[in-house]
Amino acid sequence: MGGPHPAVAHVRSAVRPGLRSSARPVLVAVSGGADSLALAAAVAFEAPRAGVPAGAVTVDHGLQPGSAERAASTAELLRGLGLDPVRVVAVDVGTGGGPEAAARTARHAALSAEAAAHGARVALGHTLDDQAETVLLGLGRGSGPRSVAGMVADRPPWWRPLLGVRRATTRAACTALGLPVWDDPWNTDPALRRARLRAEVLPLLEDVLGGGVAPALARTADLLREDLDALDALAAGHLARLADPAGLPAAGLAALPAALRRRVLRGWLRDGGVPDLQAVHLTAVDALVAAWRGQGPVTLPGGAEALRASGRLVLRPAGSPGGRAGSAPDPEEQRT
Amino acid sequence: MGGPHPAVAHVRSAVRPGLRSSARPVLVAVSGGADSLALAAAVAFEAPRAGVPAGAVTVDHGLQPGSAERAASTAELLRGLGLDPVRVVAVDVGTGGGPEAAARTARHAALSAEAAAHGARVALGHTLDDQAETVLLGLGRGSGPRSVAGMVADRPPWWRPLLGVRRATTRAACTALGLPVWDDPWNTDPALRRARLRAEVLPLLEDVLGGGVAPALARTADLLREDLDALDALAAGHLARLADPAGLPAAGLAALPAALRRRVLRGWLRDGGVPDLQAVHLTAVDALVAAWRGQGPVTLPGGAEALRASGRLVLRPAGSPGGRAGSAPDPEEQRT
Repeated sequence: MGGPHPAVAHVRSAVRPGLRSSARPVLVAVSGGADSLALAAAVAFEAPRAGVPAGAVTVDHGLQPGSAERAASTAELLRGLGLDPVRVVAVDVGTGGGPEAAARTARHAALSAEAAAHGARVALGHTLDDQAETVLLGLGRGSGPRSVAGMVADRPPWWRPLLGVRRATTRAACTALGLPVWDDPWNTDPALRRARLRAEVLPLLEDVLGGGVAPALARTADLLREDLDALDALAAGHLARLADPAGLPAAGLAALPAALRRRVLRGWLRDGGVPDLQAVHLTAVDALVAAWRGQGPVTLPGGAEALRASGRLVLRPAGSPGGRAGSAPDPEEQRT
Repeated sequence: MGGPHPAVAHVRSAVRPGLRSSARPVLVAVSGGADSLALAAAVAFEAPRAGVPAGAVTVDHGLQPGSAERAASTAELLRGLGLDPVRVVAVDVGTGGGPEAAARTARHAALSAEAAAHGARVALGHTLDDQAETVLLGLGRGSGPRSVAGMVADRPPWWRPLLGVRRATTRAACTALGLPVWDDPWNTDPALRRARLRAEVLPLLEDVLGGGVAPALARTADLLREDLDALDALAAGHLARLADPAGLPAAGLAALPAALRRRVLRGWLRDGGVPDLQAVHLTAVDALVAAWRGQGPVTLPGGAEALRASGRLVLRPAGSPGGRAGSAPDPEEQRT
């Protein structure tokens, strides 16, 4: 007899703590691939033991012939695992940002709606290998440390219990359980960046750097998230301390290290309703503190401007009267 | 006539601010490759204009036939650029940590000694492309965010003014100046990880991610260094505030976010003379604060142990008497 196959046991133990720590219902998002099927099977096994209601959602993107039939047969399989309810949701995929991004946007909207309708968390089957790919994609964007910090295991309604589990393990678990895995052709389509990272870049990196690259990327992402979360929390504390209807005091901002100062400014501008803030805007606003030499207002997206007046940073509608007069530098405010 | 070739102008403008901000003499470390030769030429041009004495050092690693002759002809070239003094230093390369690491260790020791002897900074020719390779190597190690944060532009005695300059620019500058570039065969030896990153991984990443990967990696490293420097500085402040001959107060540590708490503990253990601290040790010491349930002393490298006694973390020689008795948990110290 013996216990379950080691891969099955591994996936089950990955979902167990999260199921025992919250009684909120869980909906497993299932594509039909090995990762999400192994996750569904593990949740179906563990959730009743933890007293947690568990169902599943499969999204029909309508992008491939026969996708509706495939979604229906996946739903049958999920019902057979004991999950309830099992929902099939058809979505219209737009075209914005390329095919991967458009499908993800449509899928996330559908899953969010299901989560809200059922008061549920949504369990996603992202594995350690997905995390490594996400880190590499973030590196390629170059939009800063947060883009390299990867996916978060628990950010309601999203729950990713398999971020420490290898893709090979989910596949072995499906084989051991006799679950029929559907391999999404997109996952091997060489036109898609993530598929090429998986098929070409990561194996080459493994070869060149001597193995263990995917776990190394995932470990770095974990440590980095801890660091960035700490900085974000510290910056939120400083913003709460400094914020004032009359504006942000420049002297208080100038006393902060650059990494905190820029975060405080980003939070302040976001709280002020500035949309689509880019690095170039943040740098210009930061210069009102860190490189002050009496410069005028900084124009921001959404029709606002930030300026420095009487030792404070002020946010107001662009083109308000009194801009230059109001921002005339105090003598003590010259650049140090 | 016109001004200098754009590549020459670019390299010169990269070294200019650093030469104008410090009068300390500069020694350029020159291998004879395009990066360090372009750097040497730019420093030779700009240093006299900034009133900074500038010489050069070329290290003969003695690893290839004819290396002494090559070092001598590089030195001639450097004297021809007007650098003075120009030193040729022969080193014995050991075998520790593989050929790349052993050569780097011997070279850095020789350059450090030259810097000390001349009271000089050492200018190194690392480019933006080297920075990108360093970030990828750090990712492969998985030893945390700092390993992904790349090289620092200014950490005395080391000065790296070309971290924002592409390798192609240094090569174009050498061509424009008619400088004979020596291509180190190691730089293209496929047995060496960095050479393979350069020749295989980065071009593939560029292809898959759509270009701009090296600048993206360098930009991420810059932002990451800013973040990590801020956390390190904050942690140093907390350590100075909390440190006490009687030990570190656990309650004060527990109030810090994990990213700061672990940095404070690392600094405390390092100040206490604990060598070769690994993540596993840090995690065990951190558990005395974050997961306290009355556990005993943590054995550390170098013959020390850390324990919790009367609400404080204490560092002492391993096996000191009174360990368990002294570390008996106070009633209020149970895990929360």
